[in-house]
Amino acid sequence: MLRNFFAAMPVDTAQEAFDDLLNVPGLRIERIVSHGQKNPPDFWYEQDGDEWVIILQGAATLQIEGHDTAVMLAPGDHYWIPAGLRHRVNSTAADGPTIWLAVHR
Amino acid sequence: MLRNFFAAMPVDTAQEAFDDLLNVPGLRIERIVSHGQKNPPDFWYEQDGDEWVIILQGAATLQIEGHDTAVMLAPGDHYWIPAGLRHRVNSTAADGPTIWLAVHR
Repeated sequence: MLRNFFAAMPVDTAQEAFDDLLNVPGLRIERIVSHGQKNPPDFWYEQDGDEWVIILQGAATLQIEGHDTAVMLAPGDHYWIPAGLRHRVNSTAADGPTIWLAVHR
Repeated sequence: MLRNFFAAMPVDTAQEAFDDLLNVPGLRIERIVSHGQKNPPDFWYEQDGDEWVIILQGAATLQIEGHDTAVMLAPGDHYWIPAGLRHRVNSTAADGPTIWLAVHR
């Protein structure tokens, strides 16, 4: 468990880094660090659980299935992704880390 | 529901501001903004639910019952407060807002 959210940043920027800050029955809080990674256009996340996500650094665009335009996320922006809502990450910032805090239940 | 975590900061700094970012059955995510507020020495929070808290700006000290020293929290520091763990806030920064993100379940 990371004790400080901004500590131990991943050295390898070639892939996204996923770290659990908390993992107890029914609640998992995760830090995700992206460096320009994105999902391909034919990919969808479709999760069994609910997720609340906030971006604390960087930028990303989130595509929700059936929506014409993607959601642009800047620091502080948060989004609620209920179970089953198909979505993908269209882009993350190319010029530095994008740091997400995700609450899963 | 605030759409950006850092938006709509409270104007009144004479009291702490509590705003729900998400409130669904079994999960509540809250922003707390403090301006030097603290709990008196004989006060304890004792909550029925679990709480995970992170400070995103400012500073605070958190006193856990039975611990000799308080936990000093700086930006990015997070702490898990299981249900029933008696605790209080000994101090928050006097020179600017302390912004907490709290996950309750």
